[in-house]
Amino acid sequence: MKTFTELKQQAQRQNDQVVSIANAADEEVLLAVKKAVDQSLCSFLLVGSKTEIEKIASIVELDLTKEQLSIIHVDNNPSDAAVKAVHDKKADILMKGNVSTKDLLKAVLNKDSGLRTGGVLSHVALFEIPNQDRLIFLTDAAMNLTPTLQEKEQIINNAVQVAGGVNISNPNVAVLAAVEVVNPAMKATVDAALLTQMQKRNQIKGCIIDGPLAFDNAVSSKAASHKDIHSEVAGNADILMVPTIEVGNALYKSFMYFADAKVAAVISGARAPIVLTSRTDTSDSKLNSLSLALVSSKSF
Amino acid sequence: MKTFTELKQQAQRQNDQVVSIANAADEEVLLAVKKAVDQSLCSFLLVGSKTEIEKIASIVELDLTKEQLSIIHVDNNPSDAAVKAVHDKKADILMKGNVSTKDLLKAVLNKDSGLRTGGVLSHVALFEIPNQDRLIFLTDAAMNLTPTLQEKEQIINNAVQVAGGVNISNPNVAVLAAVEVVNPAMKATVDAALLTQMQKRNQIKGCIIDGPLAFDNAVSSKAASHKDIHSEVAGNADILMVPTIEVGNALYKSFMYFADAKVAAVISGARAPIVLTSRTDTSDSKLNSLSLALVSSKSF
Repeated sequence: MKTFTELKQQAQRQNDQVVSIANAADEEVLLAVKKAVDQSLCSFLLVGSKTEIEKIASIVELDLTKEQLSIIHVDNNPSDAAVKAVHDKKADILMKGNVSTKDLLKAVLNKDSGLRTGGVLSHVALFEIPNQDRLIFLTDAAMNLTPTLQEKEQIINNAVQVAGGVNISNPNVAVLAAVEVVNPAMKATVDAALLTQMQKRNQIKGCIIDGPLAFDNAVSSKAASHKDIHSEVAGNADILMVPTIEVGNALYKSFMYFADAKVAAVISGARAPIVLTSRTDTSDSKLNSLSLALVSSKSF
Repeated sequence: MKTFTELKQQAQRQNDQVVSIANAADEEVLLAVKKAVDQSLCSFLLVGSKTEIEKIASIVELDLTKEQLSIIHVDNNPSDAAVKAVHDKKADILMKGNVSTKDLLKAVLNKDSGLRTGGVLSHVALFEIPNQDRLIFLTDAAMNLTPTLQEKEQIINNAVQVAGGVNISNPNVAVLAAVEVVNPAMKATVDAALLTQMQKRNQIKGCIIDGPLAFDNAVSSKAASHKDIHSEVAGNADILMVPTIEVGNALYKSFMYFADAKVAAVISGARAPIVLTSRTDTSDSKLNSLSLALVSSKSF
């Protein structure tokens, strides 16, 4: 898959899915819902105060009688109710509405009614970068601060699960570091080498891992050749796995602000994809994230 | 200063400087020398084997009789001899030729004949990014792995020194982290807050520091406003200071490979700027680095 246009088209082809929104009483959220319905992406459970949802729906001219829309009225705790709908298989995807991320994740992590699988939750971002010929994943740019080796293994698995949704069945995972050699003084290089060998021993499956790789060796075959690095991953990474949140966050934003990239992102690691859009996301970006969640939900 | 064309023009205006090259017997190096002389950038001391330099000069058609060129013949240890020329004020800038970086830095750090100042050496890179309206520095993307607070202070000072050369007299330094709030679990945010306050108390001079800032808050006023961050630095950083080499290296390469940036880089922290170009640098990139060293050498 090379563009977000293709991503959305794939989501449209499988438009039988239901998205549960934790507190849909929000203008920006209902505008995104309106666009998604107009584009036949999916159906929605609008969880929250019925009165408030109806009030805001009329402001943004969203027709609540459409068959793709159902309201689940709750007086309070919309996060719990929205999560429960996914837990009870009434919805395939969880989406953050007008609640805090903290509140939503607390409901997700609830042992009884939540969506835990036992592994870590991680942020999986997908970028369309103007000068690159394919979509590229970046993980984890937002949730895990300084993941341990075991957590990195789960972060890779979580990203591989999402990559399956965009038809990358055996993705190339580049484990990033500042250099391409193992240096015991640089933990990123040590973990990268270990993850590479763990994949070779089938401790990690469903992907091809190579690391440590510097960013250039991961994305440019020419740069990899210059360093005499030859692997299926080098120069051809589908997933860039970063050692710390500082690396992931800086890369994420450099792609957006300096490389004019487009982004889609989901939280992976729970029983369903979670869409955590923020108020500053454009509506295009919200729909991209929703599309990514929709195409990947079948691998969850 | 907005472009590398301006950078080179400024270097040409002050073309009275001398660059000492540690082992000039190398085709790529002498091609860069030829271009620099043709463009009236500076003069050179070509340190190394006279016979070999003459042989390679004839291959690349470099006229060794030009007044800007002098050969300093040594049978061995060209790094020591090239460094000594700068130590003895016969040259203003040190440039790596056909020697290893390790060998060159060993000569630089020699207590008697070297170029030590007592502080750390650090890598200072300057980028021309197509979609940005000004040149932006990044440090340290290549030398210091996980600098301490004191080392970060010196890394900032080293970058400020270079920034003076490109006429940024009181640069805005954004200390990067993954978030813009102080979180004791994230050392990058703690050090950033400390460096900010150290500048306010005049422990660090000649610049304005603000941090922690996420990458977007540092380079985009709009992103900073969204987060309600208001400072001279936010959205308007001249220098991006990264917490670890992993962040610096990944950003450096994402600028180059995804944002089609141009780069110039010098090592700062010694008595003179050091140009460490590598074999994979284009000749344009070598001349950009040389220009940056030339314009900044007067602040050393």
